[in-house]
Formats: sequence, structure tokens, C-alpha cells
Amino acid sequence: MANITKKVSWSSRTDESGTPGEGTPLLNGSERASHSRQVRLACWLTVVLTGLSEEDSLFQIGRLSTVDLEEEITSDEVKSDIFCVLFQSLDYDNIENQLFLEEERRMSYMGFRCLEISRWVVCGLIGFLTGLIACFIDIAVEELAGIKYQVVKENIEKFTEVGGLSISLLLWAVLNSAIVMMGAIIVAFFEPIAAGSGIPQIKCYLNGIKIPRVVRLKTLVVKVCGVICSVVGGLAVGKEGPMIHSGAVVAAGVSQGRSTSLKRDFKIFEYFRRDTEKRDFVSAGAAAGVSAAFGAPVGGVLFSLEEGASFWNQMLTWRIFFASMISTFTLNFFLSVYHKNPGDLSNPGLINFGRFQSDSVAYNLYEIPLFIAMGAIGGLLGALFNILNYWLTIFRIRYVHRPCLQVMEAMLVAAVTATVSFTMIYFSNDCQPLGPEHSEEYPLQLFCADGEYNSMATAFFNTPERSVRSLFHNQPGSYNPLTLGLFTLTYFFLACWTYGLAVSAGVFIPSLLIGAAWGRLCGILLASIPSNGSIWADPGKYALIGAAAQLGGIVRMTLSLTVIMVEATGNVTYGLPIMLVLMTAKIVGDYFVEGLYDIHIKLQSVPFLHWDAPATSHWLTAREVMSSQVTCLNRIEKVGTIVDTLSNTSTNHNGFPVVVTENEHPAKLCGLILRSQLIVLLKHKVFVELARSRLTHRKLQLKDFRDAYPRFPPIQSIHVSQDERECMMDLTEFMNATPYTVPQETSLPRVFKLFRALGLRHLVVVDDVNRVVGLVTRKDLARYHLGKHGLEELQLAQT
Amino acid sequence: MANITKKVSWSSRTDESGTPGEGTPLLNGSERASHSRQVRLACWLTVVLTGLSEEDSLFQIGRLSTVDLEEEITSDEVKSDIFCVLFQSLDYDNIENQLFLEEERRMSYMGFRCLEISRWVVCGLIGFLTGLIACFIDIAVEELAGIKYQVVKENIEKFTEVGGLSISLLLWAVLNSAIVMMGAIIVAFFEPIAAGSGIPQIKCYLNGIKIPRVVRLKTLVVKVCGVICSVVGGLAVGKEGPMIHSGAVVAAGVSQGRSTSLKRDFKIFEYFRRDTEKRDFVSAGAAAGVSAAFGAPVGGVLFSLEEGASFWNQMLTWRIFFASMISTFTLNFFLSVYHKNPGDLSNPGLINFGRFQSDSVAYNLYEIPLFIAMGAIGGLLGALFNILNYWLTIFRIRYVHRPCLQVMEAMLVAAVTATVSFTMIYFSNDCQPLGPEHSEEYPLQLFCADGEYNSMATAFFNTPERSVRSLFHNQPGSYNPLTLGLFTLTYFFLACWTYGLAVSAGVFIPSLLIGAAWGRLCGILLASIPSNGSIWADPGKYALIGAAAQLGGIVRMTLSLTVIMVEATGNVTYGLPIMLVLMTAKIVGDYFVEGLYDIHIKLQSVPFLHWDAPATSHWLTAREVMSSQVTCLNRIEKVGTIVDTLSNTSTNHNGFPVVVTENEHPAKLCGLILRSQLIVLLKHKVFVELARSRLTHRKLQLKDFRDAYPRFPPIQSIHVSQDERECMMDLTEFMNATPYTVPQETSLPRVFKLFRALGLRHLVVVDDVNRVVGLVTRKDLARYHLGKHGLEELQLAQT
Repeated sequence: MANITKKVSWSSRTDESGTPGEGTPLLNGSERASHSRQVRLACWLTVVLTGLSEEDSLFQIGRLSTVDLEEEITSDEVKSDIFCVLFQSLDYDNIENQLFLEEERRMSYMGFRCLEISRWVVCGLIGFLTGLIACFIDIAVEELAGIKYQVVKENIEKFTEVGGLSISLLLWAVLNSAIVMMGAIIVAFFEPIAAGSGIPQIKCYLNGIKIPRVVRLKTLVVKVCGVICSVVGGLAVGKEGPMIHSGAVVAAGVSQGRSTSLKRDFKIFEYFRRDTEKRDFVSAGAAAGVSAAFGAPVGGVLFSLEEGASFWNQMLTWRIFFASMISTFTLNFFLSVYHKNPGDLSNPGLINFGRFQSDSVAYNLYEIPLFIAMGAIGGLLGALFNILNYWLTIFRIRYVHRPCLQVMEAMLVAAVTATVSFTMIYFSNDCQPLGPEHSEEYPLQLFCADGEYNSMATAFFNTPERSVRSLFHNQPGSYNPLTLGLFTLTYFFLACWTYGLAVSAGVFIPSLLIGAAWGRLCGILLASIPSNGSIWADPGKYALIGAAAQLGGIVRMTLSLTVIMVEATGNVTYGLPIMLVLMTAKIVGDYFVEGLYDIHIKLQSVPFLHWDAPATSHWLTAREVMSSQVTCLNRIEKVGTIVDTLSNTSTNHNGFPVVVTENEHPAKLCGLILRSQLIVLLKHKVFVELARSRLTHRKLQLKDFRDAYPRFPPIQSIHVSQDERECMMDLTEFMNATPYTVPQETSLPRVFKLFRALGLRHLVVVDDVNRVVGLVTRKDLARYHLGKHGLEELQLAQT
Repeated sequence: MANITKKVSWSSRTDESGTPGEGTPLLNGSERASHSRQVRLACWLTVVLTGLSEEDSLFQIGRLSTVDLEEEITSDEVKSDIFCVLFQSLDYDNIENQLFLEEERRMSYMGFRCLEISRWVVCGLIGFLTGLIACFIDIAVEELAGIKYQVVKENIEKFTEVGGLSISLLLWAVLNSAIVMMGAIIVAFFEPIAAGSGIPQIKCYLNGIKIPRVVRLKTLVVKVCGVICSVVGGLAVGKEGPMIHSGAVVAAGVSQGRSTSLKRDFKIFEYFRRDTEKRDFVSAGAAAGVSAAFGAPVGGVLFSLEEGASFWNQMLTWRIFFASMISTFTLNFFLSVYHKNPGDLSNPGLINFGRFQSDSVAYNLYEIPLFIAMGAIGGLLGALFNILNYWLTIFRIRYVHRPCLQVMEAMLVAAVTATVSFTMIYFSNDCQPLGPEHSEEYPLQLFCADGEYNSMATAFFNTPERSVRSLFHNQPGSYNPLTLGLFTLTYFFLACWTYGLAVSAGVFIPSLLIGAAWGRLCGILLASIPSNGSIWADPGKYALIGAAAQLGGIVRMTLSLTVIMVEATGNVTYGLPIMLVLMTAKIVGDYFVEGLYDIHIKLQSVPFLHWDAPATSHWLTAREVMSSQVTCLNRIEKVGTIVDTLSNTSTNHNGFPVVVTENEHPAKLCGLILRSQLIVLLKHKVFVELARSRLTHRKLQLKDFRDAYPRFPPIQSIHVSQDERECMMDLTEFMNATPYTVPQETSLPRVFKLFRALGLRHLVVVDDVNRVVGLVTRKDLARYHLGKHGLEELQLAQT
């Protein structure tokens, strides 16, 4: 470990938020929502207060997390539990205990076929419901925004003649604030996890981290209502990101065949009540969400794979694809009915970039460098956006953490957005003739001549989706450069301010809008260069490239985003330039700072595992990485010991190797058991003595574990009498008898690969005679990352 | 194992083709090409002769491989080496021995960065070269086919007036046969592995099976020349499938920085000389091939993932994507120069379906059931195609296995194709007016009036790519139903006969062409139904759907094929119907028989690992699956023992667990060493005594292993004197000190998952004190499959 710069960050002050043991990770029942919010807040606070106390941190955004304490820390300190206790791992590896194997062996081939069919049915349902939700959001936003804009427009028109436009402004601002307030209140007071786009949370979930309340029904309801309010309230947000979260929640709900919130159990899909299966469905749900949002089923599949996949499974991929397909189809169908054109299925997705006719806007070889340059600009602007948003988020965590303050901030942003929009429209002199077909939805005449409309208003006085589309498709000359420049500038800061508010809202559409604006600006400027070709003249193409560049610069997805963009444009001709642009944007952006989602994930101190172990980590072996304070249980263990072990708040382990000690020989590993399993065993009092005395005692079945999943009660809620403490428990049947093990000499990359490829939660480290010497968990692996001085050991946060 | 129906197939006659030990798997030097061809042939023969000897096999195509011997076979017999010895596994897991770890540890962060950059460079090169090859094939085919059709056309025109058309026919048939002969000769005599599309071989390679000579330079040359001959020779084949193989060969060559065939070593990319890295590049090459063939970079990536991925690695996926992008771009660019329109980059791919304008051919909800019905037809026709081709292949293996016979068959097919085409054209009365822009490439007037052309000739007298395009895009009314019906029928049988000939050729385009023909027929028939909408009238749309259905029915790819089709049409509107059609085709087709590629893989007795263990295999544990005849070596072993072990032809193991025996304690596992490593050690005489005596003795380095990769010499070629046999070898430094192990009780699905997710070659099974009890290899896992009586144990072939 000689070459590791030991770094500790965000954690110089410990024990700041009460006793750490209080928030036992298993307690995530709804009654604890407010408590766990406080705990998370505490995580954040610790992170930020200590992080910001270093002067140089402001200039090293990408590495803000590393604050050198300039001292050697003993191994024990480093090995202490450093991540926020709120975050636990999911078990993506099947717990193959005797019960499980017996059930599997009892099942016939037909049984497996039925299971497979029900998986397809569940995926179909997920797609259908996700599509319906998307449809509901779309129609609600359309109708409500229509009413709002109509009211404001009439008002503006009335007052344009008689003077007193400030009354219109006031009306607009108050309307917006009021709507946003509703959205912010439900988010801030009822379900804070529903804030933002939800993509970081889903990324974490698919990565294997259990974030409390992220896939609850309540979260879904708040998210849907919240996003409608934010979009109708005129914030610089999109309704697409939240769809991914919504799809995931739908999937988690449908696949379990019950709702814990509604206390209804439909007694179906019981087989799917474990992390492995649930994760698969959540992947499908996320994909269905992307598919519904952008009309991009393939993009959805790739998104799920890019964010979540560890092991590519073909059948799973097809099911995900099926869910995506059904989702976009459902949305498409219902929207076509809503638009009084039933059966016309060529407009999938919430956002639709409109048809790019390939003939009119084909690109040429000499444009490729231009596109790449635009990609670089996108990367730069994206990095700027992310840095600003990072600072803002830290500011928010520090000062704006009370719900009422959050609501007020959201209202302020809404009012400012309206004011800025109004001012921009007011002072803009960009009058354009109304097209013959009145393609504008809400043309604002304002001070323009009759038959003309204010083109700044097209961009501002509209839902962002429509603005994007008009930037892509309006005739050359619809916007003058000044309008676009001003619009880009203001919208950039508005969007940056908006993301991270306590409202549910996505960043995709604002990014696209900013990019489309400056992209179109580029197109117009290029068109002014004298050239003999007419190819320069189409600014819509440059708007598209700009949009891709800006979005890529902010979120840094490549493969899935390329496919999403291509599917949304409905034209594969742009595939190559979009790819190039997204890659350039990513490379340039990554030079400065991480992607927006990763920043927010990092700020939450989540033990996120990346794809590979850090490159220079071959130095490390399992011996150094593992936690050596492993609590082992005997195969036949005293109840008292188990209760004490589980109640021990200082260790708070979730997995316990089971060992067997035979006459004088050292204790050899024979299994692994989880805290959740022990809890169920204790609850059902599966004690050896009881089993002997009462012969009729029902044998514990897999169903009992499934019924308790996923909200296992805390150990404190289980009463064990003093007599019972003296009983014994036989773990043989319940433990996973064949846990994955590695020798101590295994290198970190090898451990990492095993862990990541199999989706493990615990990996037992054994010596050469199969004795337990340590345990590797997600947090042990997530600690190591590549910093500027090579491999660094990171401590993210302490509660 | 109580519930396993033991089945043995294809192997009731053993020892039919010489002594099994003769074909030592490691001998795949070029000098052994003819021998190994015989061995493979022998595999095939054994397969087929015994398979066909059962009466019921003809009616159970899908399960032809299982022939119940109606007897209990003892465990030992079952465990014998049942797969063709020709096929070995690749090592996709890094061999982490001390040398490797030392090298990795010496490398700085910058070193890893440089490696990463060189990976990108290699991928760029792969894409570029693959694109160039595609370009070369395209131009060569275009030019040569142009000359041929021009000559034949002039001849036909001349003789139409004066009579004696049979001379034209003769000319056409002889020309075709001659060209095809050349292609067949080089394939049959020089490189039989270059026959066919190469997709089954690449699937196997990516699955982890080393097929001799599949990624050699010679294979590439033969493949490229062969495919040009086949297409120009007018066979019912496409040039697209072989591109995938070509891309893979390019990748395998470029990434190694040397050519063993040309005996040139450029001393670059030495780090990549191992299976792990090479496989990654081959994935990229295959993707680049798909990308160049269909102008579908995303489809290429998905193809690689669908066929090869075990662990989804984001960086790898991006590199694959990059290679695909460069490939399609290169092809595009050079073709645009060739077509005198430099810089126009909107025609990617060898096959281009032409632009489908979405407005004119939008689909409607009520068409979805029709599409699904067409998918079902495609599935049925595809299954028929596969069954016929299966029989034909068996016939070929039985009777047409001598190269000269193969050449003659190819010539016969070429002549018959020309004759049938000519007859069809001759008797067709389908005259169509010539379009104003003369869109037909070689309009044959024949007996039509002036200003008209024979529409049957558009389909037959053309390269298949053009025929497909004209079926998609020609105006409604360009074909009459009878023409299409006859064309479908004849082309179906021609294509079926052609696939599997000893020529390099793909099945994609013929499938598309058959499908497009009957799809267009469907469209025309539907259009004749009286309807008030004009939507029925576009037969091009139905041609596309039919093409997708037929192709899906034959090859049974879904996700990647959907994306390929969508990218090739250049229009995402068709995404949903194409998906539905492909899924339907797959479900219907799978009911009858496997996909064409899988049939051919199965016929070659390859131990192919599917995605998951069979559903009902929880009964089995590692104990039952493993081979228990493991040869272990001591950490410090006598040279004589090692030589004897390696020379033992009856076991022919490739991996040897290394054990350490300490005073009376049982031998404990301490590592794993490969045959190839031992060979290198023996070759360099790394003996303990020598190292002691000659202090200057150079320490063996990783480079020595890399130089020997991948063609390690056979043990027979290494001379070890009697004195040396008494020396000792210390394996400590060279063995993989941390091999993956599982306990004996591990269930088969768990073993399978570990094996597949990590790309293992050997998995050591240990008891509870870490003693070696068995070894699981690919062949042990590939044996189990789901038959009609539940889980079956399959024995594929014996040499």
C-alpha cells in the first residue's frame, strides 16, 4: 500500500448528527421518513461543511472531494464505516440456500416456462403503465399550460393597447409562482426523494445501492404531480427525466404484485420478491421511461444497459426491449386518440424533435470539423453548467435545507423566470411575419405590426418542448442572432439555477433548448459567411448539433444518448455527426468536471461502483481491501449471540459468514447469512428447542422471507425473552452454503471484476484452509479512486 | 442426477476416424491445415452418420441431436471427452501470475492512459481497414458485375432480334460458372474455413471457442476474393455476412501488431497479445463489419454485444462504437469519391435500403396485426428454409466433402441459377414502361415493346442488393403479382441451395430479397382489397416488413437486427413494426427449429455456451458436473512429470491446478497453470538447477509468453534430454495464484453464471479444506441442455 496517497475528505468532524447507531439501516419504514431525511441531510452537511473549509477546493471542482489531511492514518481508522449508513447494497446475487434450491428443484420445466411468461407479462404491464403515466403527464401539461398561456396572452394583449403591462407581468409571475409552489410543497414536505430528475437515484439503484423510498408509490405520485406543476409553472425544466424514475417505480411496484403503501397484496408474482428479479424489472421500467420520454425504445434499452447492466443477459435484454416498445406504443396510441387522429403512430415520445427531412439537411464532409468544434463548445458550456450547479447545490445544502425555505426558493425561481422572460420579450425588437399556417402556438404580437409576432416570445412564451422544436424547424430567418444570443445566456443561468430545486424536473429539455439556441446561432453566423453552396443556410441542422453538444456536455452519456437523439430525430443520417459531437463534448467536459448526475451522486456520498477498478490498483490485494472485523456465526448458534450481534450498532453488519468448528480444527467457512434472514428467523422463533418440543411447528418457507421483503423489521422491534436467548438456532437450511470466496492474495481488479460482474454484496476472503479472514463489501471497493496523485483512498462521509 | 434423462447422440460409433489423440488441440499451425480439416470432417461425419441412422430424427429437427440409447451409462463414460477435440476454449480471464502483476504494478498511471489511447487507435485502425475492405468489395463487385451484365445484356439484345437466345443463356451460365469456380476453388482448396458467411464462426469465437484458422490473414484474403466471385457469379448470396468475418480478422491482426503468416512483427501492441484483449478487439472488428455492411454502427455494437458480451464494459462498448463509426464513415467517404460525389456522406453501408420517406408510407394501427401475421409467415418460411438447409448440409457433409466435388457443386448451382433466371425472364410477360429517369440499371427489353422493360429481369438480372432496393422503392405497379410469386418461389430454393456451398457468401441479402418479394406481393394483394384509404397502396412498405420477417425467421436475431434494419432504412418510424415482426418471426420459427447460424454451429459439435444454465438444472451441483480426473502439479515439479503429463494424449488437459503439500497435510490448491505456459517454460528450460548454476540466466518475462502467443508449439516439438527430465521446475512465479474456486455443493446455475460472467476456461472445484477435487471446463457445462424430457446430458461428438 506504499503508493497510495491516503486522503480523507468530508469527514473530519464525526458524530455531528447524533449517535450513528440510531439510524439502523434496516429501518426504512415510512414512519421514519423524516428521520432519515435528517440523516441524509446530515450526510450532506458533513460533506459540505468540511469540504468547503478548504480554500483550494473551489479551484479543483473535479477533486473537491479530496482534502489532504497530511497525516498517516492508521489502518483501523481507514477501515471504519465511512459511507453514509443510509445507503445499503442490494443483493443481486441469488441467495442459494437449501430452501431456495428445494423450491427450484420442485419446479418443473413448465413451471419455469410459466415464470418466463409472467416475466414477459410483467414487462408488458410495466411498459403499458409507464406509457399511460407519460400520456397523463403530457396531456395534463398541455391542457394546463394552454390555459395559463391563454390567460396571460389575453392579458398581455389587453394591456399592450392600454398600457400597464406590469400588471400582466405580475399576473404571469404570480400564476407561475403559485403553480410551482404547489409542486414544491408536495416535494419538499411529503417526499423529498422525488425532487430532481431521479436519474441519479435510478443510476444508483441499478448500480446496486438501495436508496430509501426511491421506488415507492408515494414517490411516484409526488413525482408525477410535481413535474406537472414545474412544467406548467414555466420553470426551465423538462418532463422527460422524471419519466425514467416513474418507469422504475412502476416496475418495482408491478413486479412485486403488492403495494406496501396501500397495504394490498395481490398474491401474484411472489417469486419476484427478491432483489435480483426486482432489479431486472426496474431496468425494464427505466428503459420504458426513456422510451416513453423520447420515443426511443432502443435508446431506452441502451440506457438501462449503460447504467445498470453488469452481466448482459439476452432474454433480459429482450424483455427490456419489449417493455420499451409497449411503452412508446401505448403513449403513441393514446396521444393519437387525444390529438383526434387515432391510429397515427408516427409521433412517439413526449418530446419529439419533428421530422428532419434528410434531403434538405444532408451534411457534408467539410462540416464534420465544425460539428466537432461545436461538440467542444458544448463540452465547455456543459462543464460550466455543472460547476455552477455544483456550487449552487452546495450552497443549497448549506443554507436552504428546510422545506419551507426550499419552497420559497422554488417560488422565487418561478417568479424570476417569468420576469426575465417578460423583460426579454418586452425589450426584444425581433418581429417576424406570421406564417400562413399559423404554426406558432401562442404568437405574441406585443409591439409588432399586425400580422407579425415577437420571435423572442416563441422561445420564452412556450413550453420548452415546443421551443426546441421551433428552433429545429422554423424557417431560416425566423430568429435574429441577438434574440438567440440573449436567450441562450438567460436560459443557461435560469436552467442552472433551476436544477436542484425541490421540484421534480428534468434537465434534458433545458439542455437541449440552450444547445439548440446557440447551435442555431452558430448556423446563422455560418450562413452569413459568403459561400456558393446553400448548405450553410439551414440553421435547424446546427440547432440539432448544438442541442446534442450541450446535452452531452452536461450529462456525459454517449452511446445511449446518441441512439436517443437519433431516434428522437427520426432520421439516422445524423447518427455519425451526433456521435462525434457527443464524444467530443464528453472528452472536453470530462477534462474539467464530471457529468451532472455523477456530481449529484457524489454529493450524496453514495458508494457507487464504476465499471472497472482504478487502473493502477494492482498493488492492492483482498487482504488490504477487506474489512477484517468480521463477525462470524456458528452453524448452530445461540439466539442471544445473534440478537446481540444484530443489535450491535457499532458494527452494523449486514452479512455474516457462518463457520463450523470441528474438534480443535480451526473454524472453516460453510456459508453466509444476511441480517434480513436472521431477522425473519428470529421473528418466527425458529429455535432448535422449539422445533423439538412442538413437532407440529410449521417449517419456515421461502414465502416467509418473501412476505417480509423488502421492509424487514428492525432488530429492536423483535422481542426475545431471556429464556429464548438461551435457545439455539440452526442456520444450515437458511444460509447460502456456497458463497463466493477469494484468497487473500487476489488483486483488487480481480476482486472488483468478480464483485461487479456477479452483482455481489458480500465477498468472503479466506485463507488457504478456508478460514474466514475478512469480508469485502461495496464500500470497501468504492473507496479507491484515481486522483491526481495516483490511487487515492477516499472516505466519503460519516454520519 | 436422478431426473436427468441421459442421452447420447452422434457418437454411438467411436474411434471411427483414427486415434483421437492424434489431433493434439494445440497443433494448429498452418502445416496442419489439411489434417485438421480431416478431423473436423470426421467430427461432422460422426455426427451425421450416427444422427441420421435414427428414423425419427428427420421429424425432430430441433432435437435431432438427441438419440436415446435406452440404457444407463455409467458416470465415467458420460464424463469422457465428448466434444470435438479441435475446439478449445479461449482464456478470457486474465492470468494473474506474478509476472503479470509485477508488470501491472510497474506501470504508471500514464502507462495505463497510453494503453487506453492505443486501444482507441487500434479500434480506429480496425474501423478504417474494415471500411476499406468493404469499399474494395463493393467497387470490385460493382465493376465486375457491371461488365458481366453489360456483356450478357448486349448478347441477349442481339439474339432477341435474330433468334438463338439459347446462346445467350449458355454465355450467361458459363460466365457465372467460371467466376463462381474461381471463388469455390480458393475456398475449397486453400481455406475451407472461409466458406459461408463466417457469422457462426465469429459467434463461436466471441463465445470463447478457439476455432482454428478463423482469424488468419489467409482466411481474410480468401474470404474477400471468394465473396467477390460469388456475388459477381450471380449466386443468390450477399456480400454483407462475410464483412463481419472480415472485420473480425482485421481486428485480430491489427491488434496483435504482427502477422504470423507474413512473419512480420512490428513490435507494437505487444500488451494486447492475450485472449482477453484480442477478444475485445475482435468484438470491435465484428461490429465494424456489421457497420460497414449495413451502415448500422449502433446495430453493429448491439450485434457484438448480443453475440459476444459476457460482462458489459462501458469503455469497451464505446471503443466498439468508435470502430463501427469509423468503419461506416470510411466506406461512406470512399464510396462517395468513387461515385464522383465526394463528401456526400448520407449513403452508409454496402446495402442501403434507400430512403423511406416517412410521410408517404406511415403506418396505421390497424396494420399492426397484418405486420404480425407477416412476421408469422416469415417465421414459417424461415423455419422451412432452415430445415431444408439442414438436410442439405447433412447431405453435403455425407457426400460432398471432397474439395473438387464442392467446386463442382458450386459451379452447378451457378449454372442452374443462371438458367432458372433466364427461363423466368424468358417466360415472363411482365412488361413495364421505362421510367423517365431510367432508374433501372440494366433494363432488359427482351420481348417487350420499345420503351418498356421486362420486370422479372429487374429482380433476376441484377445484383441482389439492387433487386432489394427496387422491390422497396419502385412505384406501385412495377411488378405484377405472378412475377413476384414465381420469383419468391425460385429464389427461395436457390438461396437455400446456395447457403452452405464452399463459397464465401452471406445469407442476409437473399433472405431480404425473398422476404421483400413476398412482402411486396402481400402489399399488392392487400391493395387490391377495396378500401377508401390510399394507405394500402404502397407495396414498398410491405416489402420492407416482409424482408424483415423473412430475415428474422432465418437468422433469429432480434434486438440487433431491429436496429440494423432501422438504421439501414434510415427511418426510425418503422422501428416498432420491425420489432414486432422480428419477435413474431422468432417465436414462430423457434417453435420448429433453431436459427440458421445455430444449426450450423450445432452441426460442428462446438461446445457453445448459452446465456443461462438450463432452467431445471438446480439439481446438479459442481460435484456432478466437474471432471474429477484432474492432473495436479506440485509447485516445484519434476520436469519429467510435466513432460509426461503434457504428452499424455488420453487426457489432453489444458489447465493444471498447482498444489502444495506440506508435511503430511493434504495437498492444498495454490494456483493454476496452463498448458501453453508450461510449453513456454519447457522451451526456455526454466529449471531450478539451471537457474542456480548459471546466475546470469535471463529471467523469463511476460514478453516470452507473448511472443509465443497464440501459436504455442506442441509438446512433441520440444526436446527434453534425460538429464533435464530429472530437473525441477518452480511454477510459483508463473501460475495464476488466485484461481477462481467453488465448493463442491455449488449448483450448476451458479457455476454457469460464474463461468459465463467472467469468461473462464477452468474453474477449480475444491473441498472444505481447499483440496482440489475437480475441474469444470466449458465442455462440462455445454453438455447440459433442455430437451423434451427435461434436462438432458448431451454428447456432441467424438473424433
